[in-house]
Amino acid sequence: MYFGTDYYPEHWVYPYAGTPEEPESRWQRDAELMVAAGINVVRMGEFAWGLYESEEGKYDFDWMKRAMDVMANAGIKVMLGTPTAAPPIWLARKHPEILPLDERGLAKHEGTRKAYCMNSSVYWDYCKKIITELARALGKHPQLIAWQIENGLGGHNTESSFNEETRRDWHSWLKAKYETIERLNELMGTRFWTQIVTRFEDVPMPMQAPTVYNPALLLDWMRFSSDTIVAFVKMQADLLHELTPGLPVTNNLRGLTRCFDHFDVADVLDFVGVDSNATIKSKSSENACGIDMLRSLKKSNIQTPGGDTGFWVIEQKAGNVNWQEVNSLVRPGIVRLFTYQCVSRGATGLLYFLWRQARIGSEKFYGGVLTHDGRGENRVYKEISHIGDEMKLLAPALEGTKVVAETCILLSHDNEWAMQQGPQPNRYFNQREHLQLFYNALHDRNISVDFARPTEDLSKYKLVIAPSLKLLAGGEADLLKLYVQNGGTLVSTFNTGLVDEHHIAPDNGYPHDLTDLFGMEVLE
Amino acid sequence: MYFGTDYYPEHWVYPYAGTPEEPESRWQRDAELMVAAGINVVRMGEFAWGLYESEEGKYDFDWMKRAMDVMANAGIKVMLGTPTAAPPIWLARKHPEILPLDERGLAKHEGTRKAYCMNSSVYWDYCKKIITELARALGKHPQLIAWQIENGLGGHNTESSFNEETRRDWHSWLKAKYETIERLNELMGTRFWTQIVTRFEDVPMPMQAPTVYNPALLLDWMRFSSDTIVAFVKMQADLLHELTPGLPVTNNLRGLTRCFDHFDVADVLDFVGVDSNATIKSKSSENACGIDMLRSLKKSNIQTPGGDTGFWVIEQKAGNVNWQEVNSLVRPGIVRLFTYQCVSRGATGLLYFLWRQARIGSEKFYGGVLTHDGRGENRVYKEISHIGDEMKLLAPALEGTKVVAETCILLSHDNEWAMQQGPQPNRYFNQREHLQLFYNALHDRNISVDFARPTEDLSKYKLVIAPSLKLLAGGEADLLKLYVQNGGTLVSTFNTGLVDEHHIAPDNGYPHDLTDLFGMEVLE
Amino acid sequence: MYFGTDYYPEHWVYPYAGTPEEPESRWQRDAELMVAAGINVVRMGEFAWGLYESEEGKYDFDWMKRAMDVMANAGIKVMLGTPTAAPPIWLARKHPEILPLDERGLAKHEGTRKAYCMNSSVYWDYCKKIITELARALGKHPQLIAWQIENGLGGHNTESSFNEETRRDWHSWLKAKYETIERLNELMGTRFWTQIVTRFEDVPMPMQAPTVYNPALLLDWMRFSSDTIVAFVKMQADLLHELTPGLPVTNNLRGLTRCFDHFDVADVLDFVGVDSNATIKSKSSENACGIDMLRSLKKSNIQTPGGDTGFWVIEQKAGNVNWQEVNSLVRPGIVRLFTYQCVSRGATGLLYFLWRQARIGSEKFYGGVLTHDGRGENRVYKEISHIGDEMKLLAPALEGTKVVAETCILLSHDNEWAMQQGPQPNRYFNQREHLQLFYNALHDRNISVDFARPTEDLSKYKLVIAPSLKLLAGGEADLLKLYVQNGGTLVSTFNTGLVDEHHIAPDNGYPHDLTDLFGMEVLE
Repeated sequence: MYFGTDYYPEHWVYPYAGTPEEPESRWQRDAELMVAAGINVVRMGEFAWGLYESEEGKYDFDWMKRAMDVMANAGIKVMLGTPTAAPPIWLARKHPEILPLDERGLAKHEGTRKAYCMNSSVYWDYCKKIITELARALGKHPQLIAWQIENGLGGHNTESSFNEETRRDWHSWLKAKYETIERLNELMGTRFWTQIVTRFEDVPMPMQAPTVYNPALLLDWMRFSSDTIVAFVKMQADLLHELTPGLPVTNNLRGLTRCFDHFDVADVLDFVGVDSNATIKSKSSENACGIDMLRSLKKSNIQTPGGDTGFWVIEQKAGNVNWQEVNSLVRPGIVRLFTYQCVSRGATGLLYFLWRQARIGSEKFYGGVLTHDGRGENRVYKEISHIGDEMKLLAPALEGTKVVAETCILLSHDNEWAMQQGPQPNRYFNQREHLQLFYNALHDRNISVDFARPTEDLSKYKLVIAPSLKLLAGGEADLLKLYVQNGGTLVSTFNTGLVDEHHIAPDNGYPHDLTDLFGMEVLE
Repeated sequence: MYFGTDYYPEHWVYPYAGTPEEPESRWQRDAELMVAAGINVVRMGEFAWGLYESEEGKYDFDWMKRAMDVMANAGIKVMLGTPTAAPPIWLARKHPEILPLDERGLAKHEGTRKAYCMNSSVYWDYCKKIITELARALGKHPQLIAWQIENGLGGHNTESSFNEETRRDWHSWLKAKYETIERLNELMGTRFWTQIVTRFEDVPMPMQAPTVYNPALLLDWMRFSSDTIVAFVKMQADLLHELTPGLPVTNNLRGLTRCFDHFDVADVLDFVGVDSNATIKSKSSENACGIDMLRSLKKSNIQTPGGDTGFWVIEQKAGNVNWQEVNSLVRPGIVRLFTYQCVSRGATGLLYFLWRQARIGSEKFYGGVLTHDGRGENRVYKEISHIGDEMKLLAPALEGTKVVAETCILLSHDNEWAMQQGPQPNRYFNQREHLQLFYNALHDRNISVDFARPTEDLSKYKLVIAPSLKLLAGGEADLLKLYVQNGGTLVSTFNTGLVDEHHIAPDNGYPHDLTDLFGMEVLE
Repeated sequence: MYFGTDYYPEHWVYPYAGTPEEPESRWQRDAELMVAAGINVVRMGEFAWGLYESEEGKYDFDWMKRAMDVMANAGIKVMLGTPTAAPPIWLARKHPEILPLDERGLAKHEGTRKAYCMNSSVYWDYCKKIITELARALGKHPQLIAWQIENGLGGHNTESSFNEETRRDWHSWLKAKYETIERLNELMGTRFWTQIVTRFEDVPMPMQAPTVYNPALLLDWMRFSSDTIVAFVKMQADLLHELTPGLPVTNNLRGLTRCFDHFDVADVLDFVGVDSNATIKSKSSENACGIDMLRSLKKSNIQTPGGDTGFWVIEQKAGNVNWQEVNSLVRPGIVRLFTYQCVSRGATGLLYFLWRQARIGSEKFYGGVLTHDGRGENRVYKEISHIGDEMKLLAPALEGTKVVAETCILLSHDNEWAMQQGPQPNRYFNQREHLQLFYNALHDRNISVDFARPTEDLSKYKLVIAPSLKLLAGGEADLLKLYVQNGGTLVSTFNTGLVDEHHIAPDNGYPHDLTDLFGMEVLE
């Protein structure tokens, strides 16, 4: 069992801590307080590019090595982040073409984080360089047990940009998918409003326009944007696997709230990492649902630092977040409650975000294990130390355990994207809320639930639920039939099978290709 | 009586219908189902540019001719749309300068519809070319009985754009209106904040600015934008009159909800065509009001395909729309109810939108006469077939009838524009809702109502209502006095006559120029 | 006691008033009506640039001189505005680079007012030229008793722009503040997300970006923008002091609602001028609070036209405004009530906005002393004439009086900016509303209140209230301690002292540097 915290040694040097003579002296005290709290792992460095490479080509990884050495002395393992989520200022100043353009064609500027177009070759090259240097400098450090790639994929509308390089990749992607322009026109249904294209180069990106784009085009755009993210993660994973063989890679994923295919991302990672916002959810079944979704992203080929088949919670909030409308303190006992919920659902690593409330920057009023004063006398530190003690006792008992489910709820990003864009039957209908109803019923009866894409092997499940899968591919429908023919029980709800994978409505009744299976047809 | 539907033969070819060997074979079946439903007219082709001219100068009208021939065999007449509402992709790619710029100067992109600046000479030229080719190829087809120009004028903020060509036309328009720059400064009141211009070329377009523009300038901008739309429609009408003499032209107008002068547009059309959203209104008097407004747009020089003086409902919804927040199905009997409402208020042609729910594109969940399956066994098809039967019986009785009204409500787009822009006494006041109160009272007593511009001949009305006409031109006030002096009864409400046609407030009391007529003055 | 109105003689020439033969003849009548109402001062000319200089370098101040002469004959004094709030159209057409860019880099266009970047050297030069010419032409007119600089500083997001010249000044400002780039990195906390800069030229302006900027950077941006406004005002003040020695300068400030440091602006003015929106506030204590805040901006070095130490209300609304959602008329007696409230809180000059409702432009339905008809028979004219009579009687009694307060509420724009940007504990918390609670309690007990920056000399106050001062500079905390040590009583509330002037959180407990003073520490 790994029990830890997210640590930013770069925040705790002089003048924010330490002394002019010993600017990094606080690190030692932090390590001591960590050990006293039962902590045996830290994640570090996922925003450190600007310190690793303060000017182009001028690298300095020594300070992080020193931080890792302090951890070594305390017996604390380290997960390092690749720092690509926040490129340094000088990079955007030298190459403003890496800045992402919004749907109106306007740049989003440097100075925060995420200010890059993921289709930028220049940005890819710089990422490869910094990762290579990082892995060479620190990849063999004995404390290092895993890599986190990037940080918090997606969000803030960063899932897509509208740069010229994006356009180039979009057209390549379309060519690879459709092969001929005739096939593209046919399957996208460009005869509607006769927006037929004669060259791949003429297919629009869905930028600001007078009215709505063809949903088939929008769907492909979201798939393309997702594939771009997956390719970016895979590039980093491949590089790290090559440079530091044997070290597993992961990413800190949110509860499937971002616009990319989380299953696809999990495929290129060695194990699933989780960002949990548990402190802000009121219902335990909603938290549980989010965790089970993330756990379900990867069902095989799992390689964790501990050698088990679990997942890690890389950012378990230690207290309040700072981005809600009202960011109340978290009541005593709640962090412990959420910690046990994660562990009971299969987490084999759990790190609190963040070690100490930052004195600088935009997140300084996030809750932390330590408060700003760093004394270690605060309520949360005591609470987490108590959990640390319990975890040491529990770890042997948890060893080798595994979550097994005989019930499965189907989930597909394609379907969700089809339900998010364009006109819908009812804009107040939320498929996730609908799905949650089923989940809650099972959760409250202590029935374990997996989530799966309709294309996965469902034969191990006694019960499969397909909640309002508006988009259902032909192949998916076939697999569901097969599942039922082999004795499985399938429950589906309204608005299932209204369009196929090309967003084409069926001419043989709804639910698409399943009217025979269900023995019924929806007439209007 | 023309009874019909809006048909998209281009949607119903292989692979969406038909077979690889006979890709258009479905058309025959559609014609049979139409005939069985009592249908004798279809509108087609208003979005077909990209199929008519898939590459610049490469025309193909044969497929539409084949569709018209199928209709001919079934005895169904045809109204053809000019396809200018959705330019093909290649045109915007070749001439990106036709894309409309928004008030911030940013392009709205191709790939949907309406992506053109109506002041673009290049776009006008391409429109003239495609219309000329279309009229030459199909204009003499014996089934053709009318043209629809464009489709759905306005909406989605397409009434104005801020391109350089728009600026050029704006300055010409101002020169034509004011003749001298002194007169412009005087009548626009540019002494306010001393935004005086010394050259017509310096008059701003009302783009993004720190604070509010002079309302007189905004009013002129809306007039100019409206005149641009009227000119665009007139260009098409003139061309079609020249190429296919005798064939009437129309357009499918919404219930005066768009930002152009609907009376002016009707002036350049041969008869009024209507888009009805009746299925989504709850009160019959509101529907009736919208229809009566549209009917009133053209009171003379009417030329319909049937030779009568009625109007056509070109798009009567056959079921739900897809753009409301909740797009519920329409209950049995409601489509029939709305059909009779239109007929009772003077419609002599009525076409349902749309024949069959599209399998592709962004409108695939609009209700249709046929559902996606195309079998003709659905509820709505049966309901409309029933109406078709009734219409055949009713048609002779309706022949030669006419709606006659002795009551009139005044309506002026100038006034509405003056009430829409800038600060108002009460932003919750809606002049249309106010007007609706009068309409409802009359409607519920079965009293027919016309709508008219204050400049029209009102002598035929016993009662004229002027509901809160904030902007009242000097000439309009004179005509109202004349009307009353000749024995008419005029009812007016608060906030009438606060500004004249130049948006200048009177210095001799409100209501402007009518204090003597009403024998009263509003003091503050 | 000065009692007056805001007069736009340029609105009242032919054809809006007067005759073709005597286009300015109305002015005489206006002056007579003013005298009859007890008026002895008018403000004029703050939007007259386009008439003073209708073409570049072609000046005409004669019309204003004639207007001032009319006032001279009636014994009415004059305050002239510098016309820089509304540059003429030709200037923006010739120098489009003066147009302000928004945070996306898009221009806000000419044709309204405020369409200029305050960092534009070109704009500064044109301002200096017109002010110089104006002061030379009219500065020695015997009626002239004061200057108003600009009009209505700030608002409509004009406090900052993102032009290249702004960027240049921003970097100079940062250099002046931080001296070395190391110090900037340290105090801005750029180690957070490692957005470290190596050159001042690389510090971003906070334009559109994917996520949130460092609050320390945002805070500096607001300080810089404020300093820009102060520099712009000071440039005008210095110029006027040089050209017309002895004439005091002021500006019409709003109740501290704009994004610049009102104390800093007051420092470069000779006396405080106020824009009062009193007619639209319902609670007298809220009005009083706004007035007391403005009165408190300048506590020494006050030079008014009357030689007293009061302030002027330059725009006291004479009736309704036009920019509320519902702009109701103001009930009888209310304008008198608000007038007395101002006088009772120290106003020694009071001018009603505006003399007569304009017939042209975007403010024509603002209430005025006269209505559009200009007859002087309207209710408000009578009411204000009545107040004029009373003021003549009161003036001698008021002579030499002064508002003295022994209670003080602390206010700092730095603190408010820190509370406005970025994530906050509770977005529904409004510090001004919180402060108002204290003010109301004192107001309702007739206890006079000053407002002050924490850095001012507080020794004269018996009671000082520090309501939720999240940002408290180290020096400010020291001064508060000194105040208490010298016997003062300090009341402070929650969330005081969470960050210092660099937006750095303390590591020695909250409230920052005051835990010893209060004998308590906030633990979380």
